[in-house]
Amino acid sequence: MAKRKQIKFGALIHGVGGNVSAWRHPEVPADASVNVEFYKKQAQTAEAGKFDLVFIADGLYINEKSIPHFLNRFEPITILSALAAVTSKIGLVGTLSSSYSEPFTVARQFGSLDQISGGRAGWNVVTSPLEGSAKNYSKTEHPTHDERYKIAEEYLEVTRGLWDSWEDDAFIRNKETGVFFDPAKLHRLDHKGKYFSVQGPLNIARSKQGHPVIFQAGSSESGKNLAAKSADAVFTGHDSIEEAKKFYKDVKDRTFAYGRSADDIAILPGIGPVIGRTEEEAEQKYQEIANLVSIENALDYLGRFFDHHDFSQYPLDEPFPELGDLGSNSFRSGTDRIKKIAKEQNLTLRQVALGSATPRSAFTGTPEKIADLIQQWHEEEAADGFIIHSSLPSGLDDFVNLVVPILQERGLYRYDYESDTLRGNLGLPIPANRYTAAKVNS
Amino acid sequence: MAKRKQIKFGALIHGVGGNVSAWRHPEVPADASVNVEFYKKQAQTAEAGKFDLVFIADGLYINEKSIPHFLNRFEPITILSALAAVTSKIGLVGTLSSSYSEPFTVARQFGSLDQISGGRAGWNVVTSPLEGSAKNYSKTEHPTHDERYKIAEEYLEVTRGLWDSWEDDAFIRNKETGVFFDPAKLHRLDHKGKYFSVQGPLNIARSKQGHPVIFQAGSSESGKNLAAKSADAVFTGHDSIEEAKKFYKDVKDRTFAYGRSADDIAILPGIGPVIGRTEEEAEQKYQEIANLVSIENALDYLGRFFDHHDFSQYPLDEPFPELGDLGSNSFRSGTDRIKKIAKEQNLTLRQVALGSATPRSAFTGTPEKIADLIQQWHEEEAADGFIIHSSLPSGLDDFVNLVVPILQERGLYRYDYESDTLRGNLGLPIPANRYTAAKVNS
Repeated sequence: MAKRKQIKFGALIHGVGGNVSAWRHPEVPADASVNVEFYKKQAQTAEAGKFDLVFIADGLYINEKSIPHFLNRFEPITILSALAAVTSKIGLVGTLSSSYSEPFTVARQFGSLDQISGGRAGWNVVTSPLEGSAKNYSKTEHPTHDERYKIAEEYLEVTRGLWDSWEDDAFIRNKETGVFFDPAKLHRLDHKGKYFSVQGPLNIARSKQGHPVIFQAGSSESGKNLAAKSADAVFTGHDSIEEAKKFYKDVKDRTFAYGRSADDIAILPGIGPVIGRTEEEAEQKYQEIANLVSIENALDYLGRFFDHHDFSQYPLDEPFPELGDLGSNSFRSGTDRIKKIAKEQNLTLRQVALGSATPRSAFTGTPEKIADLIQQWHEEEAADGFIIHSSLPSGLDDFVNLVVPILQERGLYRYDYESDTLRGNLGLPIPANRYTAAKVNS
Repeated sequence: MAKRKQIKFGALIHGVGGNVSAWRHPEVPADASVNVEFYKKQAQTAEAGKFDLVFIADGLYINEKSIPHFLNRFEPITILSALAAVTSKIGLVGTLSSSYSEPFTVARQFGSLDQISGGRAGWNVVTSPLEGSAKNYSKTEHPTHDERYKIAEEYLEVTRGLWDSWEDDAFIRNKETGVFFDPAKLHRLDHKGKYFSVQGPLNIARSKQGHPVIFQAGSSESGKNLAAKSADAVFTGHDSIEEAKKFYKDVKDRTFAYGRSADDIAILPGIGPVIGRTEEEAEQKYQEIANLVSIENALDYLGRFFDHHDFSQYPLDEPFPELGDLGSNSFRSGTDRIKKIAKEQNLTLRQVALGSATPRSAFTGTPEKIADLIQQWHEEEAADGFIIHSSLPSGLDDFVNLVVPILQERGLYRYDYESDTLRGNLGLPIPANRYTAAKVNS
């Protein structure tokens, strides 16, 4: 295997981070999810820390039980485009659903963001776990989990095809002769598939990174297969290094089986570090955040994973209720895991709810301890890098100021960006234009 | 009638302006339509001139005959969001089709742009004139002109409803009590109509201007009715002041008939001023631009209005061909006008094509002459303001530096912004939240 790439970092910066009640903390602007200065500062902090990317998550359905910072938040394409204008090197990755959108529009918007940012765009392809989404999109029902992934697969084929509409040297722009482009280098896709018919061409050319970086975030079988076949990066989440290593090997093996190099996909688990100068200080910070969450908040949070199921109907201190198939058509891998752990560890509803809303991160402790863990996960092939989601904005500052320098000194992390594109920094190949490649190979 | 509002200005800044061959001019960056620095500079020039807004047009279908700067251009939502970050007062208006999009997504994206920009967003609702659009959106056929406007009408009702999901004081964000919002001020739309079923609520709140400013740009009967019923501003175009006055009165009368004040809608014709220190210099500038257009370019340009009809099949110097209904399902008001003028003035195909591609603007001449014309159009109620589309970037500079000061001295135009929202500057009312209003009125 080739020399291991350095560690990659992303920052999840939507709203007030991973914790359902973090907005109550004194240091957090309570309107963070619609505070453009907050986003700008988080992105600029991550860029100062030479992070590969910022990440904006999304959802297409809310109700009165939703997490506070999901109720009223910026839409990813818009906030990422605004951040493009106030950053220069960091990647800009956002979630957009392939179940409730049109490939021509999405290819254009990410293509345009990619041009505006000079090759820094990334698209996290999700299939919309929330069943309620259908009700906002004039649909009688939410497609099943399997069908959503079939749609996503065809969707990605169409999008990648549209991005290749123009060969990289198609634009001549000769003012003397009046020749603007070479028609032989403009291509119509003429896609006719099960779910989509899209003629093309797209009215925007490729950026210098070729295609936006494709992220995939589902950990179900279908999710892993889609990632292995078509994605450049995976945003995942694991409770332990053993589990992470298993997932890592699984996805890399599947990627190889699809005829790709294992190096062509970056596996990036999300972690929520809590950093203190001492172990005690870190523990105290964790408690401070955990104590902000009421049991009502925690039950609502849990319900969201199970189609907004109302958990307040069950006794809090008895074993986690039997839920049957509930949740299997939304966040399947997440709900399966919650059910499994609850059963194995014989947990009560209260324990499951509070544990889900304020999980104690393994990455809690001194900067050295966190750097050690990161190094271990990287060396033992549990991760190619990490998406940092701090419950508090100061958590990102601490990570950049205290953990990053240790990793730099150890030679595990960059002192400066290697490239000004997201693909360049992630060490991912630039996809050849399919039409140019066909000519070269013929 | 109340005291007349001052004159309003917008700048059409997509790519290289109105002329099909302007990219060949020495002063124009040939890649202007995907040059982020070009857009930024144009927007900042317009803001220095205290313009109300910049305007980004759009289209959903290209082929090899399309206008050069339509082939490869930024998508409006993305470039406007980027411009939001580098401007502070100017309005940001973009075209987005109601025929090939989903109201939940569009309400979110414009709502988010509106929040990011602090209340400066505007949406130009178009129904997609180009029949080819259907082929990029998995549709077997392009809806008819009338049906597109019926869809647009319902679409706007849904969007305005979604924008009112949250009353303006819904967010309490009390860190002590943990109360984030008042559930009584969150509203589900539950729209079930002919074309759309949208439950809501929307996951973004209103900005301080209430709703993004709604533009309408069609001049057909259906277009004028949609504008009168639902729009805040109309982007139109006229060859003469007489025609413009007729249109102005017509739309204001229709607006009044819908129970609105005539002041609630701003009529903004597009004009392409060509400015010289003398009449001769202005004429010379016009010729310089007109001479860049070849007859082949002009025929392609003309064809675009008639469903990409191939005009090269007709003799150039014989009367404009009989086209029957061609074009009536796309740019109807435009194609009707072209046919009418060709017949009335007995024009050849060459004359019609070159005249369409490089129309000689009535607003050609010295700064004083142009200021006089603008004053006359405003005073005689032919316009509430104008959308400036210059063929060359220096045309916008000249307008800001030479024409604007004359209008300021005459007391017809602002020296500084009155507001930091687009509605505030256009002097348009802030739409009351429908649910708050219902309580107040009950």
